Amino acid sequence: MDIYERSLIKHREHRGKVETRSLMPLDSRDDLSLAYTPGVARPCEAIHQDPESAWDLTWKGRTVAVLSDGSAVLGLGDIGPEAALPVMEGKAVLFREFGGIDAVPLVVSERDPERIIELAKAVAPTYGGINLEDISAPRCFEIEAGLQDIGIPVMHDDQHGTAVVVLAAVKNALRILNKSFSDLSVVINGAGAAGRAIARLLSSKESEEWNMKAGKVRICDSKGIIWPGRPANGAFKEELGQQTNPDCQQGSVQEALRGSNVFIGVSKGGLLTVDDIAQMGSDPIVFAMANPEPEIYPEEAKRGGAAVVGTGRSDFPNQVNNVLAFPGIFRGALDARARRFTRAMLLAAIDAIADHVSDPQPDRVIPEALDRSVGPAVAKRVAEASVSATSKAAG
Amino acid sequence: MDIYERSLIKHREHRGKVETRSLMPLDSRDDLSLAYTPGVARPCEAIHQDPESAWDLTWKGRTVAVLSDGSAVLGLGDIGPEAALPVMEGKAVLFREFGGIDAVPLVVSERDPERIIELAKAVAPTYGGINLEDISAPRCFEIEAGLQDIGIPVMHDDQHGTAVVVLAAVKNALRILNKSFSDLSVVINGAGAAGRAIARLLSSKESEEWNMKAGKVRICDSKGIIWPGRPANGAFKEELGQQTNPDCQQGSVQEALRGSNVFIGVSKGGLLTVDDIAQMGSDPIVFAMANPEPEIYPEEAKRGGAAVVGTGRSDFPNQVNNVLAFPGIFRGALDARARRFTRAMLLAAIDAIADHVSDPQPDRVIPEALDRSVGPAVAKRVAEASVSATSKAAG
Repeated sequence: MDIYERSLIKHREHRGKVETRSLMPLDSRDDLSLAYTPGVARPCEAIHQDPESAWDLTWKGRTVAVLSDGSAVLGLGDIGPEAALPVMEGKAVLFREFGGIDAVPLVVSERDPERIIELAKAVAPTYGGINLEDISAPRCFEIEAGLQDIGIPVMHDDQHGTAVVVLAAVKNALRILNKSFSDLSVVINGAGAAGRAIARLLSSKESEEWNMKAGKVRICDSKGIIWPGRPANGAFKEELGQQTNPDCQQGSVQEALRGSNVFIGVSKGGLLTVDDIAQMGSDPIVFAMANPEPEIYPEEAKRGGAAVVGTGRSDFPNQVNNVLAFPGIFRGALDARARRFTRAMLLAAIDAIADHVSDPQPDRVIPEALDRSVGPAVAKRVAEASVSATSKAAG
Repeated sequence: MDIYERSLIKHREHRGKVETRSLMPLDSRDDLSLAYTPGVARPCEAIHQDPESAWDLTWKGRTVAVLSDGSAVLGLGDIGPEAALPVMEGKAVLFREFGGIDAVPLVVSERDPERIIELAKAVAPTYGGINLEDISAPRCFEIEAGLQDIGIPVMHDDQHGTAVVVLAAVKNALRILNKSFSDLSVVINGAGAAGRAIARLLSSKESEEWNMKAGKVRICDSKGIIWPGRPANGAFKEELGQQTNPDCQQGSVQEALRGSNVFIGVSKGGLLTVDDIAQMGSDPIVFAMANPEPEIYPEEAKRGGAAVVGTGRSDFPNQVNNVLAFPGIFRGALDARARRFTRAMLLAAIDAIADHVSDPQPDRVIPEALDRSVGPAVAKRVAEASVSATSKAAG
């Protein structure tokens, strides 16, 4: 039986994947009086007097909502909130297992970005953070931006999770090649959630401080390289064109690739040929993450001369898997009681993931997806970066 | 150390009361492919094709949200959503332990009833039911009414949970006294959430079919008996006045009590004297559920001649505790995949709770709050009543 039918059977057997448990026993009247009335009035009063204490006295400080409208689920597209539930439960289970976080699904039958923002704001007192998931672009950008001041950290994992892991991989590739980010000309294919986040991280002021600003970045969509003033640009792509592409280059992704050092693919499979890779600059680094068919298969990329190759698949080396990032990033934010995510926290996560590979090799620039020691290591660095950002802001 | 300080310490020790667990292991690549990508695509597709299958393939069929705006929390009043969290977690734990339900808190920083209705509708795909909790009257009536057609059952426990348990107690008192509901003149003090639900249940057409319609009902608020046309009535009390009080009696709760058979108090303590009870009709039944101080203490009610007495407190016999009702009511609704609660389901719960006391005695007309066999018994009867209502509607 294939993996899909086996998965269906497992889901039916357990009726999903997340269950709840009680942390306090309820076997005696005394138990009931402690966990519920009348004793519960005391923690309620304590939080009423000091709302901050909700992090200590309730599940808030260890809970994340996995919020989706079901508009862009895996490769399935717009399948709606109910059908998105298995993915959100899966994500919740990954949070639990790799971040020690009590995550719960929250799927919503709402599409208007303004109303999703209102809804997320309204439920924010329940959780210590919100992970936005499988929301279509460009709505996901607007929704994430609208939720940065609600008092708990909100992150759209499809954007930043992927960006963090692939840039950790690139960082280790550079270690092997004895290069730095400032030497690089990077081409990103795909201007959706992940592509935009990667381009912005590689182009930001904060990245410069962390030595992760790329020498040059171009980002392509189905119409080719995005340049400022391109008629097909909407607001988000126009902004991207201005933040990248300093020479205002126009043309196809193949033209962009000529002489470049890094290709990052987060869109459609089957895009590139051996020749395309052969025309790249020195020591090409290729992350072809389209799923299930990559932009180019690893053996072909290597035939074209690629020095380091990765994909999104678990059956090739260097699998870029978000599970290396989001559990630790949220755990660190919860541990630091961060009120928002900062770029420094994401850059710290990149460092932590890269540093977790003790002796990087071309076929081992990222930790294994199932390595449970990654989450805590990421959490530690993210929490430190959060606290340092807070004290900087305060000073 | 008193119960309040011990409760605070326990809450701090565990950081709340609810945790999540994974029902599928994540130890191998195969595990990851079954619980998450790529296998998870299959249950997603199955639900996309048949939304009903979400009940089988996700946590939906075993999950209830405990939703509150924190506007009327215990005796503490309007303390807001964060401070209400310990109560919602407590409720979730009771759902877990007494109903086998995976319940999760959902507190919202929203007060407008229309917007709470919109929000609850929007998140409904996530859950198999919604338990409204600690929402102030009369907003709770409007919110509950606005959520009856959202495809999952929604109940405000402060209304119907209390009503179900106290009427089960009255039913067993009548067994002891060899009387029936139609013999009774009932006085309810308190026209908030619980009082209104009790009055409506005792006056409804469905109750007549179930032999639970009272001969006469009057309901009082702080201004005395509610009568139709009373100038102080808002819309909800005017409706209550019309549904009860057939003689349009005016006056105080004491005047209402004269010659009546049942007193049900769900408002302020210290209301009644021994003489007030002595002026009641034959075999007074007194449920004085104000907390922590009852409307009259049991020993005084008995001195006034009460035949059966109960309170909301665990240190006297006949404690009316909602935990006897809501876990089984929701469990039954989930088991039957009910789309809404009907009055028949509540009446079935009353029957189930009453029947669970094998040999009712004046000091034992209700099961013990911690009796774990009550929930399943209630669930069974509620599910049967739900299915029977559905087939009736379909026929």
